[in-house]
Amino acid sequence: MANNYAIIVSGGSGTRMQSKVPKQFMLLDGLPILMHTVRAFANNQAKPTVILVLNKLYKEDWDNLCKEYAFDTPYKVVYGGATRFDSVKKGLNYLYDSFKDINHSHIAIHDGVRPLVSQQLITDGYTQLANHQALVSAIPSKDSIRIIDNNEKEASTAVDRSTVFLVQTPQFFSGEVLLKAYEQEYNERFTDDASVVENAGYPIRVIPGDHRNIKITFSEDLLLAEALIRS
Amino acid sequence: MANNYAIIVSGGSGTRMQSKVPKQFMLLDGLPILMHTVRAFANNQAKPTVILVLNKLYKEDWDNLCKEYAFDTPYKVVYGGATRFDSVKKGLNYLYDSFKDINHSHIAIHDGVRPLVSQQLITDGYTQLANHQALVSAIPSKDSIRIIDNNEKEASTAVDRSTVFLVQTPQFFSGEVLLKAYEQEYNERFTDDASVVENAGYPIRVIPGDHRNIKITFSEDLLLAEALIRS
Repeated sequence: MANNYAIIVSGGSGTRMQSKVPKQFMLLDGLPILMHTVRAFANNQAKPTVILVLNKLYKEDWDNLCKEYAFDTPYKVVYGGATRFDSVKKGLNYLYDSFKDINHSHIAIHDGVRPLVSQQLITDGYTQLANHQALVSAIPSKDSIRIIDNNEKEASTAVDRSTVFLVQTPQFFSGEVLLKAYEQEYNERFTDDASVVENAGYPIRVIPGDHRNIKITFSEDLLLAEALIRS
Repeated sequence: MANNYAIIVSGGSGTRMQSKVPKQFMLLDGLPILMHTVRAFANNQAKPTVILVLNKLYKEDWDNLCKEYAFDTPYKVVYGGATRFDSVKKGLNYLYDSFKDINHSHIAIHDGVRPLVSQQLITDGYTQLANHQALVSAIPSKDSIRIIDNNEKEASTAVDRSTVFLVQTPQFFSGEVLLKAYEQEYNERFTDDASVVENAGYPIRVIPGDHRNIKITFSEDLLLAEALIRS
């Protein structure tokens, strides 16, 4: 049996919400968002070792929140880099330096601001790594999709909606594949971990995501998350 | 000055919500969703004539709701067809038969289950039809996007997120272009009105949509809409 790890990425500074409190620290059902997320993985039956990649600027704030909320879930903090790519790489470097079995492990990567990830999805992802090297959770688009043809926005083209998936996290990878993929130089096409792994030549399998597993980016997302957690 | 019209499409039967009440009749802030939507257009400063395309099955329910809520906003009901394409076509046929200026008019088409459309967006769309023949409101995707390569879901390909837009309604068209486009036979690629118009050979311009202008499809969407309307 491979050992399981989870890297939770939380390097953001909340600029999109235009709030002084970074969004990962905002309260959801009375608890900082990021604590919901860390707990979801740490409590999963796959028993992953949880690495939280945190922006160093927020170390003190996070420590204070952990005291205030008596947060005793086990995890390890690693400080992030300037970009998401750098942050994941720092998490991976920590795993590589700390655990001898990392090449034969299963690693989930998850956005800190997706606190509503289901236990079922986490369990399924780790389980399916027995047969696949790279999995992303994704949902079909309920909207039509258009590709803009140029910067002028004068013309656009519809794409077949039935083939389009909106990518979420968690994304799951075999340790060996992920380590190899993150040896690449950063490329602006790397919008998530699957795109890094795809660029290294590995096929990416899509597994069903969850409409409830929203990413809290805008203030209305927090309203929805509150409504979902209470429903 | 061209006259303005709005076709509000509400033919659905609510199967995706697995509810006995069709979603367009569910209450949002104490009023059926569809009344919010009809009112948004009827009250707009562009003063569109509003056509509500309704599933004939729900005529009695809708009439009862209008009495119950004393809904006195002006609009005209047209009965829909089996598909969205048919429903829009029936709305257009009604306009063609009823208004002599329809070829020189400006027509908005809007989903009945997007009650949170802003007045600004409606006004902007009609205004921009002075210079364009076909406009869709759309928002950038905040998620990475993957295209599935085959039905097996064994492989998928990332696409450049900066070029991808999630299409909303309202969509705005010159009457002439829309009438011509809807003379085409139905094609399964027609997932929205812009795709019908595009297939008839007209360029589609994307204008900024609104993250708040959500489509109420799943039960969590109604929770979000409630939160948004109260915020």
